[in-house]
Amino acid sequence: MSHRRKILVVGGGVVGLSVAWRLATRHDVTVVDPAPPGDASWAAGGMLAPVTESWPGEEDLLDLGSESLERWPAFADELGVELLRAGTISAAFDAADAGQQDVLAEHLASRGRAVERLSGRELRAREPAIGPRVRSGLVVPGDLAVDNRELLRRLMGAATDAGVTFDRRAAAAVEPGAVRLRDGDVLDCDTVVIAAGAWSAALHPALTGLVRPVKGEILRLRARPGALPLRHTVRALVESRPVYLVPRAGDELVLGATQYEAGFDDEVTVGGVRDLLADAERVLPGIAEYGLTECVAGLRAGSRDNLPLLGWLEPGVLVATGHHRNGLLLAPITADAVRAIVDGDQPPTTTLAADPARHVPTKR
Amino acid sequence: MSHRRKILVVGGGVVGLSVAWRLATRHDVTVVDPAPPGDASWAAGGMLAPVTESWPGEEDLLDLGSESLERWPAFADELGVELLRAGTISAAFDAADAGQQDVLAEHLASRGRAVERLSGRELRAREPAIGPRVRSGLVVPGDLAVDNRELLRRLMGAATDAGVTFDRRAAAAVEPGAVRLRDGDVLDCDTVVIAAGAWSAALHPALTGLVRPVKGEILRLRARPGALPLRHTVRALVESRPVYLVPRAGDELVLGATQYEAGFDDEVTVGGVRDLLADAERVLPGIAEYGLTECVAGLRAGSRDNLPLLGWLEPGVLVATGHHRNGLLLAPITADAVRAIVDGDQPPTTTLAADPARHVPTKR
Repeated sequence: MSHRRKILVVGGGVVGLSVAWRLATRHDVTVVDPAPPGDASWAAGGMLAPVTESWPGEEDLLDLGSESLERWPAFADELGVELLRAGTISAAFDAADAGQQDVLAEHLASRGRAVERLSGRELRAREPAIGPRVRSGLVVPGDLAVDNRELLRRLMGAATDAGVTFDRRAAAAVEPGAVRLRDGDVLDCDTVVIAAGAWSAALHPALTGLVRPVKGEILRLRARPGALPLRHTVRALVESRPVYLVPRAGDELVLGATQYEAGFDDEVTVGGVRDLLADAERVLPGIAEYGLTECVAGLRAGSRDNLPLLGWLEPGVLVATGHHRNGLLLAPITADAVRAIVDGDQPPTTTLAADPARHVPTKR
Repeated sequence: MSHRRKILVVGGGVVGLSVAWRLATRHDVTVVDPAPPGDASWAAGGMLAPVTESWPGEEDLLDLGSESLERWPAFADELGVELLRAGTISAAFDAADAGQQDVLAEHLASRGRAVERLSGRELRAREPAIGPRVRSGLVVPGDLAVDNRELLRRLMGAATDAGVTFDRRAAAAVEPGAVRLRDGDVLDCDTVVIAAGAWSAALHPALTGLVRPVKGEILRLRARPGALPLRHTVRALVESRPVYLVPRAGDELVLGATQYEAGFDDEVTVGGVRDLLADAERVLPGIAEYGLTECVAGLRAGSRDNLPLLGWLEPGVLVATGHHRNGLLLAPITADAVRAIVDGDQPPTTTLAADPARHVPTKR
């Protein structure tokens, strides 16, 4: 067992908090973030769905996500968070959508994962709120969903209980043994973990160009009395735009998510909200009668190959970012991997594909 | 000059605050409202547009609104609030819309008010942001607009400076000489003014059935860099739904307003936002690139004939409510009328049509 270290985790979203919580059992950990718990994590829908997010050519991501999904029930249990276990329905409108689903189903079959293919009528028997224009779909029983905000609150509490402290200032740069803050102060440490999501690239020269912000707009809705409730998470492609609807315990429904590559612009736009509402109404015609309680945008951390960046950048500097749309899904395995790497143990083998050495010459 | 009285004004929206401010020069005034400054007033767009709101059969309302509009420049000046003076453009899409505009233009001509009728091309020369599907329109140069929230903040300040006090509790019932609060307390006074908007009907038996809530949803947008700014207030009918766009100083644009007769439901709905955005985009195609900063709903106080209720209900109990979509426009003349009535002076003659005696046997 390694000696006790002073560790700074830059970034207090779901990844940074999970990492800090896991590390705090053996080390002195401080999370550096001006406003935890995070940006993209706070906006997120909370789908834990590696299978319906999967695509040929992204097998490493499917394996990583699937292994993290296996860790989710225990992770949620430790934190006292409920999981939605009804599974995902992926809806297809036209021949092109159905064709994409065929590709996905065959890809999954080749990986040994069965999904159920249903007609529109069969889908509506399972989920009566789905509209008549949906002509076919896939049912993925294993997918989970979580209330991201409840999770983040619990993670803040669990990290605090485990001894994690919070420095609510902004980091400007990371180097071995130190985090420089925007206010000019320097925090010393043994090890730094960069978990600053879309803001990570500016913190360390090796990350330049490897992580970019991808804006996502998300709406929070409320089922009003008389509305037909949704039981499953429902995803669809509408004119090539992905849309998802994630029901929460109670009457909340989360609707997401647009994707814009527009730099650090995090404003909700008229066009984004218009598209989300129009696309969602095609999937769930009763949605017009829902209340609209919140419009929010978050900046995900996109990577070049949609895999996260997870490993040493140089001695003393670890990175755990680039989780894109999978920050919540991948939080458990990311935290376990960082904990293992810091302590010199073997990280989960599926995380090896996420080593930043695939993009940059890292100094070990 | 009458003696100094203790007056309670129930309701701290634009009408209650204006009334309280005017009365405070001669009397001891307390505004009773759990959360001033108001509900519908705070949500409102801030159009001061009696002419484009006018319709045959509502001549009394046009006269009342026109006289209040004349009082607005001095009213705004006293409060230190800027007015938008660019005027209103009323846009027509199809033959039915154009037909409605013909009715309005002839009605206004018969009342001695000239409006300018322009083709779509001429409209776009005045206001380049208007979209190509608008085929004709009216230009009403005299209409004004005000930033309702700035106005309400100034009214709160001016009322406080004039000696008005605030009791932030909810009223349950009004009777001569007393306001009963929901918490059981009773406030004594010489005179009560009921200015509680949509909530007025429950306060006094004579108002039962005379005032009803009419929900309006309003969005606040922000012009992003590169967006074509709007100079005029623009109104339109889209498939019989009225929509308006009111530019503010700076980059804000207010978009309203749906109308629902749904009781005391004040939740913003998916369908309402969807319709507002779709309708606004037909008028102003560039709006998709605007930021969406707020979705809010307010409950206007609808009356049976769209005229407010303004006068004595019984000795000691005055009413000033039912202003529907015209609360901001009619605030100056309402305040002047209430001040005159309380002091035994002659109120403005255009306010006589608003006497509640037209609906109920009032006890003088």
